[in-house]
Amino acid sequence: MQFFSAINFTVPLLASATESADSSMVVASVLLSLVVIYLASKVGGELSNKIGLPPVLGELVGGVIVGTSVLHLLVFPEGGTDSSSSLIMTFLQITAGLTPEATPQVFAAQSEVVSVLAELGVIILLFEIGLESNLKDLMAVGIQAVVVAIVGVAVPFAAGTFGLMTLFGISAVPAIFAGAALTATSIGITSKVLSELGRLNSKEGQIILGAAVIDDILGIIVLAVVASLAKDGAVDVGNVIYLIISATAFLVGAIVLGNVFNKSFVAIANKLKTRGGLVIPAFIFAFVMAYLAAIIHLEAILGAFAAGLVLEETDKRKELQKQVIPIADMLVPVFFVAVGAKTDLGVLNPAIPSNREGLIMAIFLITVAILGKVITGLAVFGQPNINRLAIGVGMIPRGEVGLVFAGVGAASGALSKPLGAAIIMMVILTTFLAPPLLRFVFPESKTATTLDEGSSDTLLAIATANDGKHLEVTSDSQESLNK
Amino acid sequence: MQFFSAINFTVPLLASATESADSSMVVASVLLSLVVIYLASKVGGELSNKIGLPPVLGELVGGVIVGTSVLHLLVFPEGGTDSSSSLIMTFLQITAGLTPEATPQVFAAQSEVVSVLAELGVIILLFEIGLESNLKDLMAVGIQAVVVAIVGVAVPFAAGTFGLMTLFGISAVPAIFAGAALTATSIGITSKVLSELGRLNSKEGQIILGAAVIDDILGIIVLAVVASLAKDGAVDVGNVIYLIISATAFLVGAIVLGNVFNKSFVAIANKLKTRGGLVIPAFIFAFVMAYLAAIIHLEAILGAFAAGLVLEETDKRKELQKQVIPIADMLVPVFFVAVGAKTDLGVLNPAIPSNREGLIMAIFLITVAILGKVITGLAVFGQPNINRLAIGVGMIPRGEVGLVFAGVGAASGALSKPLGAAIIMMVILTTFLAPPLLRFVFPESKTATTLDEGSSDTLLAIATANDGKHLEVTSDSQESLNK
Repeated sequence: MQFFSAINFTVPLLASATESADSSMVVASVLLSLVVIYLASKVGGELSNKIGLPPVLGELVGGVIVGTSVLHLLVFPEGGTDSSSSLIMTFLQITAGLTPEATPQVFAAQSEVVSVLAELGVIILLFEIGLESNLKDLMAVGIQAVVVAIVGVAVPFAAGTFGLMTLFGISAVPAIFAGAALTATSIGITSKVLSELGRLNSKEGQIILGAAVIDDILGIIVLAVVASLAKDGAVDVGNVIYLIISATAFLVGAIVLGNVFNKSFVAIANKLKTRGGLVIPAFIFAFVMAYLAAIIHLEAILGAFAAGLVLEETDKRKELQKQVIPIADMLVPVFFVAVGAKTDLGVLNPAIPSNREGLIMAIFLITVAILGKVITGLAVFGQPNINRLAIGVGMIPRGEVGLVFAGVGAASGALSKPLGAAIIMMVILTTFLAPPLLRFVFPESKTATTLDEGSSDTLLAIATANDGKHLEVTSDSQESLNK
Repeated sequence: MQFFSAINFTVPLLASATESADSSMVVASVLLSLVVIYLASKVGGELSNKIGLPPVLGELVGGVIVGTSVLHLLVFPEGGTDSSSSLIMTFLQITAGLTPEATPQVFAAQSEVVSVLAELGVIILLFEIGLESNLKDLMAVGIQAVVVAIVGVAVPFAAGTFGLMTLFGISAVPAIFAGAALTATSIGITSKVLSELGRLNSKEGQIILGAAVIDDILGIIVLAVVASLAKDGAVDVGNVIYLIISATAFLVGAIVLGNVFNKSFVAIANKLKTRGGLVIPAFIFAFVMAYLAAIIHLEAILGAFAAGLVLEETDKRKELQKQVIPIADMLVPVFFVAVGAKTDLGVLNPAIPSNREGLIMAIFLITVAILGKVITGLAVFGQPNINRLAIGVGMIPRGEVGLVFAGVGAASGALSKPLGAAIIMMVILTTFLAPPLLRFVFPESKTATTLDEGSSDTLLAIATANDGKHLEVTSDSQESLNK
């Protein structure tokens, strides 16, 4: 008895003694983690791109492979794993002489640093998305797209949340989180398939793209609300209303105030003569907004997104976009690979009987994800000859926004392991299934041509911003290249 | 008695209980730290640039102001400071509801993350410097520049180390570290002054710039050797010889192997179709090299520098440089501001009698720093009408390379607080003094014109790479802009 209590007390003491052990080991472990992350993201992203899927899906699968499900190279303590199961730590012990005593501290520090880098990655991703979303274009997509977007958010959310609570007895907060993850629409993949089919400028294509963009904004508001609920752990109607109002007010307020602030930003950036004279003030603004959003109990990414929307309205937009691209290329893969690495797909292994419930949940989520969006297509009104099925199917892939939900949900601790894995499976499968389904219900246009110049170009620019190197084909960027 | 032992045991237990307390607080604290760092670096850098000094000096002074010397916004636990003296933590407690119990853990995590970001910053800085250093140009600068560089490294190093050991009784490792910090030559500031004087293409200008570039490489080798000595804590002649040989072999080996690897790198980068197809493979290479250098007991930055040198030889050079610039703009200031923030200039406060020795050390280092380089000018041979004094004075500013020494030294724990602060003072003062001194000994050329095209352009490109937005004035970049 005394023996055990002695052990209990000495372990934390030891840990605190080696706390500031070896900062060069921490740096080495972070360097190795980044090498693993970059290899996983590039190999996965390129293979995915080659078979016509969005690179982000490959990055996610790459993360699953190097992570806790398969190779155990990149593991995180949240999952209950300790340092001995991290292959990077083992590698450091062999090659760099890391002592077993110092390993737990180095492992903790490495996980902390990689997690924060992943958070910075998603903050910069949302900043970049904001920077590429033109408000005026958004307002011009028309009432059709707005209705489709709202129905496309409401139906899967309601069906998913209600189904999980009633059929599976999941409690409110995780059920709402999973329901929220069902609302997203990935613009990248659908716009690519539509352009391959020569249907990007069709009525259907325009509605899908417009709705997907509005969907993103609704999704970020939903996420801010849901993540805040997850922090409190309980759902209170008054709180939900407060959160929806505050998230919307934050976004609208940021845009209104931003239009005033815009000119001072440009004036300041023009005065700065040293390196980073544009990107650093932009990041100061984005990080302050992210901080503000975080402390009023919303999500940091909502602030970064709002900052991007505001700066998109300045004439520094293009220059800033160009400079943010390499930074996003460096940090965003850390987020997607980390989401994959933290996902334990083992909990869905059908060979183990206790996994059955998780598997059934995954199947349920996938069904709701597909049907919820297909039904949405029926909401299109006043268009007699339109292909409603194509609109619904075009909105099926969840892509990166769905992954942001899964990542934030896992980090908040709201999602159980099986539910988290089920969401990831849903994102992967909807994204895999959408292209063939879309090709099936929406045959190639007989007048299929290469993209022509027109009003839909900016939408395409938004649509493909996070997807491969396609940005260059738009007339907007073409212009800047010709300068 | 029993009461005290209970406290002793509960504190670490508490700490470990709140360990993974609130990851969103850690992210918020890192966001705030970055805002503080960017504000300090931009305000400092711009003011410094306005009065004709290199921006990096202002970033450093900005760091000193927000750091442990003045405002206590950005403080690090290494200095013995605890979380209660961090104004960022106080701010988080007020605005974000951080609890006092969770503060030590959040503070530790924030410091860890910011320190690693600073390390990534210096790794990317050296990668960028490598990427901008053309090996063939280096070999073409001639025997004069090589001799000047070697003398300019040897004299201040020997005088500084020997003086500190004999006059101040400093032990060998810190004395060698301080001596090594004296060897650096900052290219940025001298090349700017020379171009203002219309003397960049003079014989003197060419020798200074050539020597400064070689100096950088010698300096990085010296740093790798010295930092390794600091890890062992003792100086052993056999070990020194081993380290010098291994550092040189690493660099030469990397370049030779790199020339083979070059083509595969270009081939791989050309095959990648998704975003980050150039910068990610480049970082994988740079981080692997950094890791290799670190585990053979050299410094990670030596590996990153070698990787940069290798990739400079590929025809992806310009595209890669352009993409690395915003990433460097984002991460490098974290390094310089952190170096400033960690420096406690209070230990040189002349009002406190016990500080006298540190002050005298600072004066000694500054004297050696100036005289050591002035003497170097006399080493120029076979040039009857050359202004030897101008060459010596032109090499006085230590700039960013000196700061890298101070930062690495402080991180390794080899430098005492007064010696660390004395080195920082030396770097600041030599950089402040050099421009007026140079103008005094090297009057403006009567034929002073704007920069003309010529063989020295590439050197200028190297010279000004880390210094303001001057890169664009070189013919090389002009070309790429016209494309």
